[in-house]
Amino acid sequence: MKKIGVLTGGGDAPGLNAVIRAVVKTAIGSYGCEVIGLRDGYDGFLKKDGIVPLGIKEVRGILPRGGTILGTANRGNPFAREVIKDGKKVVIDTSDEVVAAIKKQNLDGLVVIGGDGTLHISRELFAKGVPVVGVPKTIDNDVGGTEVTFGFDTALDTATEAIDKLHTTAESHHRVMVLELMGRDAGFIALHAGVAGGADVILIPEIPFRYEAIVEKIQRRIKRGSHFSILAVSEGAKSIDGEQSFSRSGNEIYVPRLGGIGAQVGQYIEENTEQETRVTVLGHIQRGGTPSSFDRFLATRYGAAAVRLIADKKFGSMVAFRFGDVVDISLEEALAVPKRVKVDGDSVRTARDLGICFGDEK
Amino acid sequence: MKKIGVLTGGGDAPGLNAVIRAVVKTAIGSYGCEVIGLRDGYDGFLKKDGIVPLGIKEVRGILPRGGTILGTANRGNPFAREVIKDGKKVVIDTSDEVVAAIKKQNLDGLVVIGGDGTLHISRELFAKGVPVVGVPKTIDNDVGGTEVTFGFDTALDTATEAIDKLHTTAESHHRVMVLELMGRDAGFIALHAGVAGGADVILIPEIPFRYEAIVEKIQRRIKRGSHFSILAVSEGAKSIDGEQSFSRSGNEIYVPRLGGIGAQVGQYIEENTEQETRVTVLGHIQRGGTPSSFDRFLATRYGAAAVRLIADKKFGSMVAFRFGDVVDISLEEALAVPKRVKVDGDSVRTARDLGICFGDEK
Amino acid sequence: MKKIGVLTGGGDAPGLNAVIRAVVKTAIGSYGCEVIGLRDGYDGFLKKDGIVPLGIKEVRGILPRGGTILGTANRGNPFAREVIKDGKKVVIDTSDEVVAAIKKQNLDGLVVIGGDGTLHISRELFAKGVPVVGVPKTIDNDVGGTEVTFGFDTALDTATEAIDKLHTTAESHHRVMVLELMGRDAGFIALHAGVAGGADVILIPEIPFRYEAIVEKIQRRIKRGSHFSILAVSEGAKSIDGEQSFSRSGNEIYVPRLGGIGAQVGQYIEENTEQETRVTVLGHIQRGGTPSSFDRFLATRYGAAAVRLIADKKFGSMVAFRFGDVVDISLEEALAVPKRVKVDGDSVRTARDLGICFGDEK
Amino acid sequence: MKKIGVLTGGGDAPGLNAVIRAVVKTAIGSYGCEVIGLRDGYDGFLKKDGIVPLGIKEVRGILPRGGTILGTANRGNPFAREVIKDGKKVVIDTSDEVVAAIKKQNLDGLVVIGGDGTLHISRELFAKGVPVVGVPKTIDNDVGGTEVTFGFDTALDTATEAIDKLHTTAESHHRVMVLELMGRDAGFIALHAGVAGGADVILIPEIPFRYEAIVEKIQRRIKRGSHFSILAVSEGAKSIDGEQSFSRSGNEIYVPRLGGIGAQVGQYIEENTEQETRVTVLGHIQRGGTPSSFDRFLATRYGAAAVRLIADKKFGSMVAFRFGDVVDISLEEALAVPKRVKVDGDSVRTARDLGICFGDEK
Repeated sequence: MKKIGVLTGGGDAPGLNAVIRAVVKTAIGSYGCEVIGLRDGYDGFLKKDGIVPLGIKEVRGILPRGGTILGTANRGNPFAREVIKDGKKVVIDTSDEVVAAIKKQNLDGLVVIGGDGTLHISRELFAKGVPVVGVPKTIDNDVGGTEVTFGFDTALDTATEAIDKLHTTAESHHRVMVLELMGRDAGFIALHAGVAGGADVILIPEIPFRYEAIVEKIQRRIKRGSHFSILAVSEGAKSIDGEQSFSRSGNEIYVPRLGGIGAQVGQYIEENTEQETRVTVLGHIQRGGTPSSFDRFLATRYGAAAVRLIADKKFGSMVAFRFGDVVDISLEEALAVPKRVKVDGDSVRTARDLGICFGDEK
Repeated sequence: MKKIGVLTGGGDAPGLNAVIRAVVKTAIGSYGCEVIGLRDGYDGFLKKDGIVPLGIKEVRGILPRGGTILGTANRGNPFAREVIKDGKKVVIDTSDEVVAAIKKQNLDGLVVIGGDGTLHISRELFAKGVPVVGVPKTIDNDVGGTEVTFGFDTALDTATEAIDKLHTTAESHHRVMVLELMGRDAGFIALHAGVAGGADVILIPEIPFRYEAIVEKIQRRIKRGSHFSILAVSEGAKSIDGEQSFSRSGNEIYVPRLGGIGAQVGQYIEENTEQETRVTVLGHIQRGGTPSSFDRFLATRYGAAAVRLIADKKFGSMVAFRFGDVVDISLEEALAVPKRVKVDGDSVRTARDLGICFGDEK
Repeated sequence: MKKIGVLTGGGDAPGLNAVIRAVVKTAIGSYGCEVIGLRDGYDGFLKKDGIVPLGIKEVRGILPRGGTILGTANRGNPFAREVIKDGKKVVIDTSDEVVAAIKKQNLDGLVVIGGDGTLHISRELFAKGVPVVGVPKTIDNDVGGTEVTFGFDTALDTATEAIDKLHTTAESHHRVMVLELMGRDAGFIALHAGVAGGADVILIPEIPFRYEAIVEKIQRRIKRGSHFSILAVSEGAKSIDGEQSFSRSGNEIYVPRLGGIGAQVGQYIEENTEQETRVTVLGHIQRGGTPSSFDRFLATRYGAAAVRLIADKKFGSMVAFRFGDVVDISLEEALAVPKRVKVDGDSVRTARDLGICFGDEK
Repeated sequence: MKKIGVLTGGGDAPGLNAVIRAVVKTAIGSYGCEVIGLRDGYDGFLKKDGIVPLGIKEVRGILPRGGTILGTANRGNPFAREVIKDGKKVVIDTSDEVVAAIKKQNLDGLVVIGGDGTLHISRELFAKGVPVVGVPKTIDNDVGGTEVTFGFDTALDTATEAIDKLHTTAESHHRVMVLELMGRDAGFIALHAGVAGGADVILIPEIPFRYEAIVEKIQRRIKRGSHFSILAVSEGAKSIDGEQSFSRSGNEIYVPRLGGIGAQVGQYIEENTEQETRVTVLGHIQRGGTPSSFDRFLATRYGAAAVRLIADKKFGSMVAFRFGDVVDISLEEALAVPKRVKVDGDSVRTARDLGICFGDEK
């Protein structure tokens, strides 16, 4: 093993730098191997100055820092790149060009740190001969095949702290507080933070809700003397009649989340109860900050394990966390079924046992 | 001094409980005096169960907690109370009734913890004979006569931490991040947090801005290789042509801050630059949480000082922080001129020296 | 199921209150069952005012709070209670008395939240007919049969934050910083926090160290231009020649940890290198604070699951966390083998890959 | 103004990097002036590679980071430098050499960021013609002439959080918790954090204490049903009989603070009450971490103001914080009287009003 590459793709997640650092320190320190970093995901192979040598010095001090020193390209899909041709936007397949550029680098392996999107692309590039090893990353915790991804724990801490801060105000000022959290398809952040923060209502994509059920819950609380309520709402939550309250534009939400599901729920409550209601959209704050110790430890283990997988020539695989251990699975298996909250699982049951309303109550 | 009362009014601010605790411990411990708490501000004097005895036991453990154990009434102005009469909402003056109820309690003094609104009411009640001593409270730091109010420092920490979290994502993902912060009339939170968090643009009510100036700043940064920018925006910021981007409804903003100034600025940037832009509205999270050590210390000193003022029969006064010391001034003086960011002061000058754009640049 | 009891035993751990709250809310809300709390562990069954009814009101607001509202008795072993008899301390078996007192309460089950010590006692009481269900608690993470215990994650965050704070000073002031962490028999806190905080040396009970190896590591760093080093040291770490540096007195360490292993290591470094060295003993700070979201979620699931186990009459069992799920195992299994850091496991290997020194290097 | 220098001296304090950044950004951005940084304090003028050019790029991202990118020399006093001569340590005056080296750099001004020691040296160098402007730095808050120094607020937050964490354990486990904090000659950290954290006993250098008074306080609390107590103790606190419990070796404490005042107080309590006692020495953790928003804002204002003072040729001066504003005073004035806690001031009075024991009670 003489030379490996590492790149980061997709949205931000605390711990990306910790993985990069572990990759570099393990490759250099334990294998005497050279490491290059790619700027802005796969784009780094093509663009000027897109390849940077990574030594011990380059990764010094980055362990506790959010973001990624390598940058990412949100729209850098080699199989479907937007380009301007004859004054019009067209989407073209540039994968062969990318594969050629990668091969030119003579890499013994390429560590790809990314979410569902980036990992799908990587699997296709693996099919074209690129020696890829994946590291799952998502604050949403929705990558299959692994119990947990780094970034999720830190995002949870941020979300739970936000609920804590809203709690005291809600209670002493008799308010309904709606907190819209990330999670388009998977409701893990809202579920875990909602339980951890003591929310009264949790709305997640996996359990379509009725607006009336929410109001009934708030009214029951008022009758029992609790003139306040806290709602943790996934951005992808939707009401039971099928109308999806959340709309995408491209692969990311359009800027001002006007009229997101949080605002809609807040408005409905304000109009259908006597309670003053406030809505907060936590947004990208969930993606930043210094990673929690859990995420740093996991990210470091992932990074070191990924280098070992390359040394073992186990390409097309992904590191994963299972039974308290870091293991490897195939990208195939990881991408087969995205992870979702089990609606009959122990977590949801616990939440219901505690009296938390999911909006699907009869 | 045999019996004093204490109440909290207006929006939430970290440190309210610390003041209540200091009032109770000082009154009981140093003066052997009884203390009653009023539930939900002045309303407590009128409503059933509105008066609660406060002993050492009642204030145990509340020092580090946000909110107020006494609750507040957002619309509890005795001089202008909304009531339903013949099926219609009418506003009536109930101040004589409140004054009578207060007198019935035979208080040697009443500690009123509140912002501009609550303090104005208290001054009028003082004119009607109520032995009031004020304690200034506002996360916006806009009460006159005092260098600082408790709650501001904690709100700043929350806002600065949010900027920190946005920073790494902005940088590694090449984004413009707009953070809308509290501050309708005074821009202290956005100014201080903006400088402390390393924002590139700060928009505050005191300095009307031009949209073009913001875009120019972002473009200059891109030219210098900084493909990201951070904006700290007061909710009360407005563009230079006078159109106030922010509208109130009653004395609090209507629920979902759709189309607030943050969203408008974000939209303008997205439309007038190549930069992806994300908007976060931090909202009520700024009002909650455990108070910072600075706020706890200040709030405790305020509470103890307020009791001493009652012992000295200095009614109609307010505790204030000046030159590193807790002093007392008249409510008159405190309410004469609300505090605003000095546009020619050292803070703004420092920000400009550092290259921060306020949007009024030519 | 009509009436259950709950008690907490042993040292403090963030999340105890979260378990109590979940037990109470689940028992009352989902089973319509009465709950009593025992003050100060098993002592509560015997002493005056030792039994308190726990309703929804009693557990309100305790979720984010450290400590335990029920208190614990550090020396409350019913099988070996210290009493003064004829002016002398003697140890007597009071278990029959305790069992009788428990039976008098007519409990359908007793939730016991505790570490190794408390769980051993509970197993013996189960053998005497007490319908016990255990909830594992330890910040050291050394209870067997479960991947993780609540409290550990929060302790880790505290320890990692301490390393972060020492790091910048170490680097800019050219110091060696020794941080002594909890962990008498198991080194999980020092290992995880050391990796997460970027320590250069980690000393744990499971891997006896040579003082010379530490000095060699520090000297190597100096030669490479790193004039500082960070050491994360378990209180139970010991040098290779077998001499145990750490001594207990009774079942807790004597007050001032003078001459603990951290101080000894610091002294050795100061005497055998040119480097100024500072030692910090984090102590009980690791046991306190608001639980992390992970610990709150886990503690809540444990509490709810424990009540379900009682409903299912699965006594003598313990809730545990495996494969991302809350399961139940027998106390027998849980107590068979205490958990230790696997010296050949993935975590230690990752740390070594990153160049971290454990002091056993040749 | 064409070229200025900046250096940091003495112990670590959160905010050093924020000052450096503000100096660089103000000098370059507003005055088009070149900036050099000196490595390891005044030593930088003499040693190889001791001078580094500081551009905008060098200060990017350092605002939220603890430590100092320039490093400091703890023993770098040009007037009394330790050197080895003929195999023996001797102290020689190298100030002329340093002055010559400074003059060779042709600086228009030199920003010196440091505490008492560094500022004293700087005043003497100013007398020898060096165009010095001082920026006060100390986590102890003991520099005269200014209401506050940066670093203090962050240290306070760290200390208060530690007390918070000890509090819940103390309460639920019936313990006495002793927390030894920094402050050799000034007790500000212990006083402010003690009040902010709700300590029962505060021991500071300015108020000599009697051991018996502490025990009496703890006994009184037990009688009232509070079977726990929290003590915040300055490292420089001493008992009333004059025996100084704290001893220095050189200008910093010897490594393992064995038998510091915290341990002594803890031992006395353990021996003279029934209460189990635990001692924690927070140590250098107080000097690190990301600066609070208050400290970042103050440090930034200090840095910008220092550059303006150089532009105005106001040498021999120091920036200071008074009445909410950044002003300048002479180094003479600043160093005339070091700041101490006013034993008759409002802060101590407030603490006494709340029932806090200082150990000097009769």
